[in-house]
Amino acid sequence: MEDFTSFRKQSLPLIEKEMEDFINQYTANEQLKEAMLYSIRAGGKRFRPLLVLAVLHSFDRHPQTHDYQIAAALEMIHTYSLIHDDLPAMDDDDLRRGKPTNHKVFGEAHAILAGDGLLTAAFQLAALSRIQSDQKVLLIQLLSKAAGTQGMVAGQAGDLQGEKRSLTLAELANVHEKKTGALIEFALLAGGILAEQPEEVVDLLGIFAKHLGLAFQIKDDLLDATSSEAELGKQVGRDEALNKSTYPSLLGLDGAKAALAEQLTLGTKTLGSVKEISSEFQPAFLQEFLNQLHLS
Amino acid sequence: MEDFTSFRKQSLPLIEKEMEDFINQYTANEQLKEAMLYSIRAGGKRFRPLLVLAVLHSFDRHPQTHDYQIAAALEMIHTYSLIHDDLPAMDDDDLRRGKPTNHKVFGEAHAILAGDGLLTAAFQLAALSRIQSDQKVLLIQLLSKAAGTQGMVAGQAGDLQGEKRSLTLAELANVHEKKTGALIEFALLAGGILAEQPEEVVDLLGIFAKHLGLAFQIKDDLLDATSSEAELGKQVGRDEALNKSTYPSLLGLDGAKAALAEQLTLGTKTLGSVKEISSEFQPAFLQEFLNQLHLS
Repeated sequence: MEDFTSFRKQSLPLIEKEMEDFINQYTANEQLKEAMLYSIRAGGKRFRPLLVLAVLHSFDRHPQTHDYQIAAALEMIHTYSLIHDDLPAMDDDDLRRGKPTNHKVFGEAHAILAGDGLLTAAFQLAALSRIQSDQKVLLIQLLSKAAGTQGMVAGQAGDLQGEKRSLTLAELANVHEKKTGALIEFALLAGGILAEQPEEVVDLLGIFAKHLGLAFQIKDDLLDATSSEAELGKQVGRDEALNKSTYPSLLGLDGAKAALAEQLTLGTKTLGSVKEISSEFQPAFLQEFLNQLHLS
Repeated sequence: MEDFTSFRKQSLPLIEKEMEDFINQYTANEQLKEAMLYSIRAGGKRFRPLLVLAVLHSFDRHPQTHDYQIAAALEMIHTYSLIHDDLPAMDDDDLRRGKPTNHKVFGEAHAILAGDGLLTAAFQLAALSRIQSDQKVLLIQLLSKAAGTQGMVAGQAGDLQGEKRSLTLAELANVHEKKTGALIEFALLAGGILAEQPEEVVDLLGIFAKHLGLAFQIKDDLLDATSSEAELGKQVGRDEALNKSTYPSLLGLDGAKAALAEQLTLGTKTLGSVKEISSEFQPAFLQEFLNQLHLS
């Protein structure tokens, strides 16, 4: 498969099938299942699971069932975080990807439980995946680290606390590294581990993830500051309304654009470093993730 | 250690230390850490982790660090479920164990995140525990099954849905089997696995757990219907106010008391069956958990 568009087109239904099949088979309450599937089916770019699979393709590995299982577990965790993030007590969002948020459709109580269910199901799916036990334990360690109190959950807490005061650029970077960076980093590390790459390569993939994650966040901030609701499929200008520190608010629009460009350049350089170690490495698909973050 | 009281007294600080040390070491946000520790420190009977350790003692095993790690992971999951259960959108409770609930102290957003953090940290602790990989994977599979969409989360959804209509006795038993029974079952299964018992014994421990779990729930319903707030350290009469089906509402007070007594008898019988298979088995500590549920 040479072409990114066909990679994406072929991978998406397999990731989605893995998530849907698991939820259908392992959920013992109909309304809960419906609430979980609603958010799983709400689409989105599937950025994180595609990254896992893109790493495998970069090393010329054809993804197997267990690779899709890990990719699906990661997307389930991302989806739970969106459901809880949208709750009235958190960001209080009514729209997500152009559709009413989970609690708007199923009520707050079921939205909380749908999130709890997806988080737990992600670990269940990873634990049941067809992977040799030592590697599986390592992946579960990394996933819980990325998703939890050293990663995403800590980042969300920092983000909340940041609404009440101005953050420095270093504090903002720290919040984002945890809130969005940690799951992106997991995607790259997991891809490298599943592709059975040496530690040196997995470490470089982790560095690539840092640049990609930061670029992703700066782009997200820029979109929130400059897009319309119709373009984005969710409420915009929320950051400003909440008086949140963002890259545009700290660096100005031009400064944020320059910071984005710098991260994309560093990301490309890191892919070059992987190529120097591993001659089989084909950076095209991972480069494409950077390309998509360039300002149009 | 021959005596249940000294077993309890020696075990509790070790379970609590395992939870506190892990949260202190693995939480990268101070307010989040404070919110998590608040609920962990709010006490409670530590019923579930003590059950894990009681099984080990029943087979004359002295609990090791990894046993406390699994017991602590289980209690962290129980604690997260209480935090989310108490939220305004769920049971809307102001008091828990005689203290203000988590969201009353830290706000709803941090309470949601403290719950998410404890749930994820439980899997992280289990994944990092000093246990051989195959056994660790099995324990994580069972824990995620018990805590998630086949167990506790499904039970909480069923419980919520039950507030809106009358449940039959079979439906009520099904909700409770998931909501409170699944984690209790995990405690017994995990204890049996950690004590390296054969499948036949682990299965019987699972049956014992069903009787214990059901007895526990009937007793809880009876306490809610008949105690004062001062006695219980939380709001009482909530079930009736929410028009929830309970054992007393379906069977009457006397019928519920008889059902409780029956489950306790069946639990004792099951312990006898374990003893028949395994002569080293000393049922005294597990019997004590039944004894404590007898009506005083």
